[in-house]
Amino acid sequence: MKAIDKMTDNPPQEGLSGRKIIYDEDGKPCRSCNTLLDFQYVTGKISNGLKNLSSNGKLAGTGALTGEASELMPGSRTYRKVDPPDVEQLGRSSWTLLHSVAASYPAQPTDQQKGEMKQFLNIFSHIYPCNWCAKDFEKYIRENAPQVESREELGRWMCEAHNKVNKKLRKPKFDCNFWEKRWKDGWDE
Amino acid sequence: MKAIDKMTDNPPQEGLSGRKIIYDEDGKPCRSCNTLLDFQYVTGKISNGLKNLSSNGKLAGTGALTGEASELMPGSRTYRKVDPPDVEQLGRSSWTLLHSVAASYPAQPTDQQKGEMKQFLNIFSHIYPCNWCAKDFEKYIRENAPQVESREELGRWMCEAHNKVNKKLRKPKFDCNFWEKRWKDGWDE
Ligand SMILES: Cc1cc2nc3c(=O)[nH]c(=O)nc-3n(C[C@H](O)[C@H](O)[C@H](O)COP(=O)(O)OP(=O)(O)OC[C@H]3O[C@@H](n4cnc5c(N)ncnc54)[C@H](O)[C@@H]3O)c2cc1C
Ligand SMILES: Cc1cc2nc3c(=O)[nH]c(=O)nc-3n(C[C@H](O)[C@H](O)[C@H](O)COP(=O)(O)OP(=O)(O)OC[C@H]3O[C@@H](n4cnc5c(N)ncnc54)[C@H](O)[C@@H]3O)c2cc1C
Repeated sequence: MKAIDKMTDNPPQEGLSGRKIIYDEDGKPCRSCNTLLDFQYVTGKISNGLKNLSSNGKLAGTGALTGEASELMPGSRTYRKVDPPDVEQLGRSSWTLLHSVAASYPAQPTDQQKGEMKQFLNIFSHIYPCNWCAKDFEKYIRENAPQVESREELGRWMCEAHNKVNKKLRKPKFDCNFWEKRWKDGWDE
Repeated sequence: MKAIDKMTDNPPQEGLSGRKIIYDEDGKPCRSCNTLLDFQYVTGKISNGLKNLSSNGKLAGTGALTGEASELMPGSRTYRKVDPPDVEQLGRSSWTLLHSVAASYPAQPTDQQKGEMKQFLNIFSHIYPCNWCAKDFEKYIRENAPQVESREELGRWMCEAHNKVNKKLRKPKFDCNFWEKRWKDGWDE
């Protein structure tokens, strides 16, 4: 495989995953909108071709996907040169925050808390770094107003919003009866 | 070590990590405010005492800290019984979102974008699930207003806010000259 110049006239439309490559407005591939594999492919970082790909489509041995054992940052004895998150890592992190926010939302919120939660989700849908993900989430919120009357309501709403994305990505549906165990109480109680 | 009942009259003040145990308003230990190790200690989940602790203070072999190889959720062939995040996992996830939001903020934001970013950070500091973390962050924002005039400004502001928490936790300072490589561009360009 040839390394592909970012500035090439004919940027690839599709990545190794078979998914469409998303570009920024300035024509650069967007890191937080593509999987790391596809990002590395279009930016020519996968120079050994497909030889390093294991069966699950992950790069083997390079630590490229995990940040493991990467070099230290200049001047630091602690922090390593970890690359920015791809669309999946950003997604997992963001769902962790969002469901945890729902889990700690009051059972009986004040009017101010209800207003802030609505605003938070609205603004979130404008600033989420994967901009095409954000657009769909914004539309979802418009059509399915966040339910903020109680923790129970908000937790279910968030679970259903997440299921909407799961469906789009052809991932299995998560049984929302378990959202509290997954994000608030744990499985042992 | 004896399993400690949640409802005991004399709940422990300090965890195995040596850190103060944080309780909810209803007297239950707060999962997103304590490390998983301390949470498991005060809820009596560490029944084998210290035998399973490896030198880094992590539980060995149980998968308890990673969610690895946990059982499947009832009715699912995909989703496992993963426990809610502890204060560290929630923190890493949240910083991933926050720095990525800064990295995708416009170089020249509109007035609306500036206003929304300020609001977002304000509300974030009210709803962050680790409530004592949130209180300190709220105070930080009050004393160090978020800099939202450009991506560069916001990225540095976020880096400094994170360094403030690093300092409080006695972690090394991160060199903010590298925030863009860490969260936007990567290390190879
Ligand atoms: C608002 C938003 C919009 C997104 N839009 C897109 C998009 O358009 N395209 C794209 O490629 N990626 C998108 N993502 C990322 C995507 O949702 C996943 O996070 C990413 O693909 C990684 O998936 P994962 O399989 O690791 O698990 P994730 O989907 O990240 O889920 C993490 C964990 O949450 C639990 N979980 C799963 N479903 C639910 C649920 N319904 N309720 C509660 N808990 C659940 C499970 O334990 C799961 O392991 C979006 C993320 C967010 C936050
Ligand atoms: C708003 C907020 C407040 C918090 N307050 C507390 C608290 O009061 N008490 C508590 O115990 N925990 C708190 N946390 C969690 C804590 O900051 C850490 O996330 C957690 O301890 C896990 O730390 P870590 O060592 O894995 O790396 P993290 O501190 O989570 O950092 C993750 C990665 O970010 C990069 N990084 C590190 N510092 C910076 C920086 N300054 N700028 C840019 N990138 C950086 C490094 O690559 C690092 O590996 C808070 C988190 C947030 C988001």
